[in-house]
Amino acid sequence: MGNHPTPVTVLGLGAMGTALAEAFVRAGHPTTVWNRTPAKAAPLIAMGATHAEAIDDAVAASPLVVTCLTTFEDTRLALEPAVASLRGRALVTLNSGSPAGARETAAWATDHGARFLAGAVKNVPSAVGAHDTLLYYSGDKTVFEEFETTLKALGGDTVHLGDETDLAALYEMAVGALLLPALVGFFQGAAAIQARGLQVSSMVRFTGKWLDMITNLLPVYAQEIDNGHYTDAASSVNLFLAGIPDDEDLGRETNVDTSWLAPLHHLVRRAAEAGHGDHSISALTEVLKRPEQPA
Amino acid sequence: MGNHPTPVTVLGLGAMGTALAEAFVRAGHPTTVWNRTPAKAAPLIAMGATHAEAIDDAVAASPLVVTCLTTFEDTRLALEPAVASLRGRALVTLNSGSPAGARETAAWATDHGARFLAGAVKNVPSAVGAHDTLLYYSGDKTVFEEFETTLKALGGDTVHLGDETDLAALYEMAVGALLLPALVGFFQGAAAIQARGLQVSSMVRFTGKWLDMITNLLPVYAQEIDNGHYTDAASSVNLFLAGIPDDEDLGRETNVDTSWLAPLHHLVRRAAEAGHGDHSISALTEVLKRPEQPA
Ligand SMILES: NC(=O)c1ccc[n+]([C@@H]2O[C@H](COP(=O)([O-])OP(=O)(O)OC[C@H]3O[C@@H](n4cnc5c(N)ncnc54)[C@H](OP(=O)(O)O)[C@@H]3O)[C@@H](O)[C@H]2O)c1
Ligand SMILES: NC(=O)c1ccc[n+]([C@@H]2O[C@H](COP(=O)([O-])OP(=O)(O)OC[C@H]3O[C@@H](n4cnc5c(N)ncnc54)[C@H](OP(=O)(O)O)[C@@H]3O)[C@@H](O)[C@H]2O)c1
Repeated sequence: MGNHPTPVTVLGLGAMGTALAEAFVRAGHPTTVWNRTPAKAAPLIAMGATHAEAIDDAVAASPLVVTCLTTFEDTRLALEPAVASLRGRALVTLNSGSPAGARETAAWATDHGARFLAGAVKNVPSAVGAHDTLLYYSGDKTVFEEFETTLKALGGDTVHLGDETDLAALYEMAVGALLLPALVGFFQGAAAIQARGLQVSSMVRFTGKWLDMITNLLPVYAQEIDNGHYTDAASSVNLFLAGIPDDEDLGRETNVDTSWLAPLHHLVRRAAEAGHGDHSISALTEVLKRPEQPA
Repeated sequence: MGNHPTPVTVLGLGAMGTALAEAFVRAGHPTTVWNRTPAKAAPLIAMGATHAEAIDDAVAASPLVVTCLTTFEDTRLALEPAVASLRGRALVTLNSGSPAGARETAAWATDHGARFLAGAVKNVPSAVGAHDTLLYYSGDKTVFEEFETTLKALGGDTVHLGDETDLAALYEMAVGALLLPALVGFFQGAAAIQARGLQVSSMVRFTGKWLDMITNLLPVYAQEIDNGHYTDAASSVNLFLAGIPDDEDLGRETNVDTSWLAPLHHLVRRAAEAGHGDHSISALTEVLKRPEQPA
């Protein structure tokens, strides 16, 4: 490689796909782009990317085809007219989706003779290309090894999780699971601060430190869950139980809807009832596991 | 001060109260401790703290009395036999609780002639005493200024938020609101990883980076909410909407109970229905605000 950067095709030029294509162009890769709505290609063309009107031409242009459509299903649908050109090429998906969606797409790609890698960008579009931005991949390791240098243009922290095609989707979703609840927690706090006539920006520094604290607790919780050993509690289920009436008080006082918290409170109560009161809050993991279905 | 560190009393020797008393002893303050269950004082006595059997003696021992009981109500109840000794002393609460609880306790303390400051430790017991550990206080600023050096023994990042006694409780709860939802999100992901026979510790590094990303997004979201301007979306409501079926898929595949997510998904749907589909996910803040009650 070196003097001859690998040609790359990017399909899907939404917020994330555009960021991916930009990073390839900046890293000097001949970059072909395609989008259902062609107008979105304009800024990339201005940067030096080549635009393909037909998805079939876009696929045929490069040995490495990276997709960033909304879902796995959208990806398969959009690629239907181009399946003949997929044979022998490396297809790398970078959308979010379930492990089942990744497996289905892997089987579909393999049927069409493509070599397949399913990946995920664990960050926002503006972080694409940074040295510490995390992307993980799973599936055909030979694809990963062949194109690793090229893929690193998208983020320096680039990891292959294993040969099972759905591992990236599994980790994407498992790690991603805290995003929406954490954000709604923040928005809830923001609404309370606003109800008091204060600026939400005044809580940002404090929340940042709070997130650092959570980061520091993760290895402890992970170990408790891995060992199924919850008795050495730094913060107990009972402590969270004691805080429940305060959440409800604050919701009333600030006129903020806290009804979304009810099932979370219910989980805490169920954990206490199951004998986890003095145990670590990580014991909630056990309450979340559904009983095995009889076979 | 300097050569004569301020004598301090700590009431309540649970996980957090013990950490507070230890930090005062380590910083060289003559420290008097009291706990309803006296046995919990033993490790502190071994470190050099003075134990008071009666709460009244504990209060009388120091100009600065720091409490760390479970709730504001527990604090007032426990202090009932010692109210006569409160007059003229600085009473500083460090429990969690609602703004209403803080106001009630402030009025009660003032009635008994105490000078009152309500504080909160924004961290776990093991972080007490560290240079970057955050504690905030609100209420009587003269108390804060008089004892600031002493209080800094509990954490170097010590802040006075304002004269209104309930501000620390408000920020404590507003900032704290993301803890339980974020943790349950993590436990949910952990259960999914475990269902696949993988170690939860394998997702810790990835989750840490995910939390860093959230930290980086906070100033943007705060500004959007402060300005009520949600149209410049890095991650849209529709993107979260598209992810909902995946959450449900993964729950089924890994046999994890995702029913606690239903109200969060409902908020996302309501935001989309209210015309926020292409807007920033921070627009959920508007959906959380309850309509004003007619007066
Ligand atoms: N934005 C983020 O913060 C972020 C972060 C991590 C991961 N992701 C993931 O990246 C993926 C894309 O996200 P995004 O932010 O780029 O979304 P977006 O801005 O909404 O763009 C969606 C893209 O998918 C295309 N598309 C959707 N359905 C299609 C179909 N049936 N046929 C052809 N094209 C179709 C759209 O084409 P049109 O332009 O023609 O509509 C557009 O290019 C998602 O899976 C998302 O979860 C996003
Ligand atoms: N642990 C944390 O991670 C953490 C972090 C931030 C804030 N906090 C807050 O700090 C406060 C204390 O937490 P903790 O972790 O230390 O809890 P804890 O270990 O459960 O200890 C509770 C303390 O309160 C005392 N107490 C409760 N009710 C009482 C009553 N009616 N009369 C007399 N004493 C009573 C207990 O006395 P006995 O020993 O006699 O039961 C014990 O000393 C809570 O508000 C908590 O939310 C804790």
